Amino acid sequence: MSNTAPSTDTESARLKPMANAIRALAMDAVEQAKSGHPGMPMGMADAATVLWAKHLKFDPADPNWPDRDRFVLSAGHGSMLIYALLHLTGFADVTLDEIRNFRQLGSKTPGHPEFGHTTGVETTTGPLGQGISTAVGMALAERMANARFGDELVDHRTWVIASDGDLQEGISHEAISLAGHLKLNRLVVLWDDNEISIDGSTELSESTDVMKRFEAAGWATSRVNGHDMAAVDAALEAAKTSDKPVLIACRTTIGFGAPTKAGKSSSHGAPLGADEIIGTREALAWDHVPFDIPAAIRADWAAAALRGERERGEWLARLNQSEHKRDFERALSRSAPASVFEALAAYRKALATEKPNLASRAASGKTLEVMVPAMPSLAGGSADLTGSNLTKVKEQPLVTATDYSGSYIHFGVREHGMAACANGMALHGGVRPYVGTFLVFADYCRPAIRLGALMEQPVVYVFTHDSIGLGEDGPTHQPVEHLASLRAMPNVKVFRPADAMETAECWELALKNDTGPSILALSRQTLPFQRTDDGSENLSARGAYVLKSADSPKGVIIATGSEVAIAVKAAEALASKGVPVNVVSAPSLELFAAQNKAYRDSVLPQDLPRVAVEAAARYGWDAFIGVDGGFVGMTGFGASAPINDLYTHFGITADAVAEEMLARV
Amino acid sequence: MSNTAPSTDTESARLKPMANAIRALAMDAVEQAKSGHPGMPMGMADAATVLWAKHLKFDPADPNWPDRDRFVLSAGHGSMLIYALLHLTGFADVTLDEIRNFRQLGSKTPGHPEFGHTTGVETTTGPLGQGISTAVGMALAERMANARFGDELVDHRTWVIASDGDLQEGISHEAISLAGHLKLNRLVVLWDDNEISIDGSTELSESTDVMKRFEAAGWATSRVNGHDMAAVDAALEAAKTSDKPVLIACRTTIGFGAPTKAGKSSSHGAPLGADEIIGTREALAWDHVPFDIPAAIRADWAAAALRGERERGEWLARLNQSEHKRDFERALSRSAPASVFEALAAYRKALATEKPNLASRAASGKTLEVMVPAMPSLAGGSADLTGSNLTKVKEQPLVTATDYSGSYIHFGVREHGMAACANGMALHGGVRPYVGTFLVFADYCRPAIRLGALMEQPVVYVFTHDSIGLGEDGPTHQPVEHLASLRAMPNVKVFRPADAMETAECWELALKNDTGPSILALSRQTLPFQRTDDGSENLSARGAYVLKSADSPKGVIIATGSEVAIAVKAAEALASKGVPVNVVSAPSLELFAAQNKAYRDSVLPQDLPRVAVEAAARYGWDAFIGVDGGFVGMTGFGASAPINDLYTHFGITADAVAEEMLARV
Repeated sequence: MSNTAPSTDTESARLKPMANAIRALAMDAVEQAKSGHPGMPMGMADAATVLWAKHLKFDPADPNWPDRDRFVLSAGHGSMLIYALLHLTGFADVTLDEIRNFRQLGSKTPGHPEFGHTTGVETTTGPLGQGISTAVGMALAERMANARFGDELVDHRTWVIASDGDLQEGISHEAISLAGHLKLNRLVVLWDDNEISIDGSTELSESTDVMKRFEAAGWATSRVNGHDMAAVDAALEAAKTSDKPVLIACRTTIGFGAPTKAGKSSSHGAPLGADEIIGTREALAWDHVPFDIPAAIRADWAAAALRGERERGEWLARLNQSEHKRDFERALSRSAPASVFEALAAYRKALATEKPNLASRAASGKTLEVMVPAMPSLAGGSADLTGSNLTKVKEQPLVTATDYSGSYIHFGVREHGMAACANGMALHGGVRPYVGTFLVFADYCRPAIRLGALMEQPVVYVFTHDSIGLGEDGPTHQPVEHLASLRAMPNVKVFRPADAMETAECWELALKNDTGPSILALSRQTLPFQRTDDGSENLSARGAYVLKSADSPKGVIIATGSEVAIAVKAAEALASKGVPVNVVSAPSLELFAAQNKAYRDSVLPQDLPRVAVEAAARYGWDAFIGVDGGFVGMTGFGASAPINDLYTHFGITADAVAEEMLARV
Repeated sequence: MSNTAPSTDTESARLKPMANAIRALAMDAVEQAKSGHPGMPMGMADAATVLWAKHLKFDPADPNWPDRDRFVLSAGHGSMLIYALLHLTGFADVTLDEIRNFRQLGSKTPGHPEFGHTTGVETTTGPLGQGISTAVGMALAERMANARFGDELVDHRTWVIASDGDLQEGISHEAISLAGHLKLNRLVVLWDDNEISIDGSTELSESTDVMKRFEAAGWATSRVNGHDMAAVDAALEAAKTSDKPVLIACRTTIGFGAPTKAGKSSSHGAPLGADEIIGTREALAWDHVPFDIPAAIRADWAAAALRGERERGEWLARLNQSEHKRDFERALSRSAPASVFEALAAYRKALATEKPNLASRAASGKTLEVMVPAMPSLAGGSADLTGSNLTKVKEQPLVTATDYSGSYIHFGVREHGMAACANGMALHGGVRPYVGTFLVFADYCRPAIRLGALMEQPVVYVFTHDSIGLGEDGPTHQPVEHLASLRAMPNVKVFRPADAMETAECWELALKNDTGPSILALSRQTLPFQRTDDGSENLSARGAYVLKSADSPKGVIIATGSEVAIAVKAAEALASKGVPVNVVSAPSLELFAAQNKAYRDSVLPQDLPRVAVEAAARYGWDAFIGVDGGFVGMTGFGASAPINDLYTHFGITADAVAEEMLARV
């Protein structure tokens, strides 16, 4: 697509003013907002101009063209760089007014780039390390879709601009080692090697040989002067033929052009100030008022933006003639196909008959056996706990560096990178990711889960070993506060199914949740089958429901997951003492809270005493049981012992639940 | 101390049976428990034996000898390795009965090694990557204490055994790059390079050139056959003269000795089984019944354990003659010195007069100006947000690779590594760490915060920019659920002070909290001074208190941090409408919940309607305001805009609070 000849001096003469337009917009927008980060856009303007004007495959007329290159500004604080690029190349969202409204309420130009808010932004960035790691997922999804649909439909690259901070973050290690292992050669990272961090020179905290580090991880590397546009051009061109992911170190000057702040941390995160801006205009010979871009420069950018039009037309023609068209479009659809819900419906009916007693992690594994064959875009993995999470379907082919046609990924012990990678896969499309680890290690994934929630990405987390029920591994591996901390996060749905039927139901609800992460909290230990219905209605869909109904109940016991069995036992004991109570199973408190008041009151009548049992912290439960409600659970960390000893030791027993109820009726 | 001559064949002949004793104990204890990880202890038994028998400086007679070497089993799942070592070297906690009780309730031999539970365990491990990162903090604290007290009192090493999984975790990148930057040459990591992870061969997920990776991070590296004890011995000896941290790759066979499971993931995380154990006994020529260690081998271990006795005696003599004795012992004491509390008391009196309006982050900075000079062991840092967190006191000297005598550390953008490092510093002793980043990035630190809570380590987290009040940086940087998720964690105290006085009080409480992490959630924005008392009593100590008292109040508004000012305004508005209400400031909900019922009821009378205001999620607040209580806060993610626009946009205003109250009186 691109002009593959190296840049000439003439070409640089055309490109330099295009880069200066980015610098001007960045410094003027930050100045107007009295807030923002001018240094990085000014430093990387040259390299970004070469990338966008000569290499990036995109067409502003269809920002969602599936075969476009993905551009990830991992250093999201430099958001004016991408806004300037989107504006100058004609993305409809980013008008000059929006640039003027940088960082204002409701503008398309928020402080950090937000996916879903501004068309053309491929992923939300800002929390460092996330962009580069999400990009690995995009590059992986590209190769997986390529393996399925061929070069004709899927043949694009993922380009990243990353900062020193991105590379200091631990998640970058997980991401680059995974990318190197999987030989994701369609991934190119431009490292803004400006030797400046917020605290000052990177020498204050960093001595790593970054090139060697990436080479150790299996990457190809090169180094350029980031202001030498011909050199950048040549490096980008060379990157396209690599058989490994590529790091291009771009030595730049932060705040390039600013007379006294260039090369200093003072240009990083604050407006330059009026005097400095005057000086910058002089230094760059930029003789235009704020937000004024000369027509000739606009024309050059417009011409660059047209590069993708023809290629997109050709691609569309190929798509329309492709035998894969229907499958391709179905894979790109965010909604899971009807086939998988049909398979699940049949499976639930079978469960109602078989009534198997299964650990919910095992039930999840069985549900995957049903779903994976019925949903080709479903792709999973685990952070080196495959046999514990039961995330791999028998015979599910692996994704490897030599064959991307599989649908199972051994992520290694890289929980955080895995979660970001899953975000990237979901953002890219064509695959619908689910990933597994122990629930306690949700903490390792948390920043990426949060970004997925913010971006409304449908990643399913299979978090097994969800309580002290995991037994001997002890308190380091026993989640206590994790359910609460995940329920507290906006736009996350937490599911904790009580038996094999609820597990199938919760998986169905997770697949139907197209607008955010779903968490499945699953037991290590075997759980008795609880349900007596025929499996035709998804009872978990309302979040909580009356599992065992008593005549004239005097109270309600509400439980989740593995503790539902304890609640049922407690209810039986109470019944024998003449105290009939209902048992409510609550696989998803978020879904229950979203029901109307009439339903909620029918399940948890306000005038009946309520006791909850969950082998976790009470934190958050008062909203359902009231301040005076009873709670049987954990008040501190767990301990190492066989499961039954632990439940007894921590007093999470049917007797304790019954006692709490008896104290209230 | 150690015999510095390389091992001879004769020596290996003595050491091999000592290592086999570890193997036998490991496989037999796991078998008895029917749970555990025999493979790693059996694989690393040889290297660990060389380390403990010849190099590690320790004396079982005083496990807390301050100048002992620290041994960190980062691969904590191999806990039987350290239990066997502690047992064989005569640590009182780990008797043979305790070994027999491996992984049983209340035993000293839980599934993963737990600091504080088993003497001789230097840090709790299990969550991968934490041990090696915590060890960096220990090695740093050693150098800092050495700089202060000299070689005579502080001159020891930190030895780590780390697994493939430890090195895959992102936190290991942060830790090793920091260690390399700071040239922590007293840190030696033995990498158990067994080429096996849980999912199978490490080839499934890993292609990194680990040696090159560590060299890129500024480490010295060497490689040995981990079963060649002379080679291990030589490598350990060589490591002692390095001017950089040292990685020793020990190529081992997981489950060494097991006839069919050695070298396979099947030996990793499950008992070997009776037949395999019989075969292992044959292969190792270990002709003893389970848990029986021949007297000769016991004697060899006992002799090895005696190596430290003389050296400790000499050290004690030096301590008793040292001019630093008093300061040294004071620095080692977990309790903060009286001097700092005296300084704080004077500062609080001054505040009561000055009544400054300050952002609580600025108030924290001013409090640090008071504390740092009064407490020499106080050492801080930030993850590259020094000027934003205001964690550095003017003229506070830096800790650098060439001079460890400072007390401020530029951690770089390494939040997770920083938190683990702080745990290690606290565990080591001699320094009392505080570390800073934005509150939203508490998520990056979370696994380490949790371990600190479990280990009861007094790390203070200075988490600034604690709400949408940070403004333009937008939702990626605006915590919403973080207060809830931290409050849900056992043994963590969360403080959110409302003004400069409460900030000083909360810092005082944080310093007094010797048994777990303290979180200071601090505002970016300026907060009006609220207090009218003379500053002599720490009102924050009870968690919540009546800040503004009304005659015959008809309701109570409860608020934290920056929203206390909104609560005060709402109360004024309500008063003008004839609805007198109390205003409660609640800087710590944990401390408040720990008060007796009479006090709690006096602050939040059960019969008065309650409205809470906090620019965060409601999750968890029902416990204080009741299900019917009013709440003004966030219901989803934030947005990018100037602060005032955001508070208005999200309806966190005095008007909204007043309305919630009016609807309830």
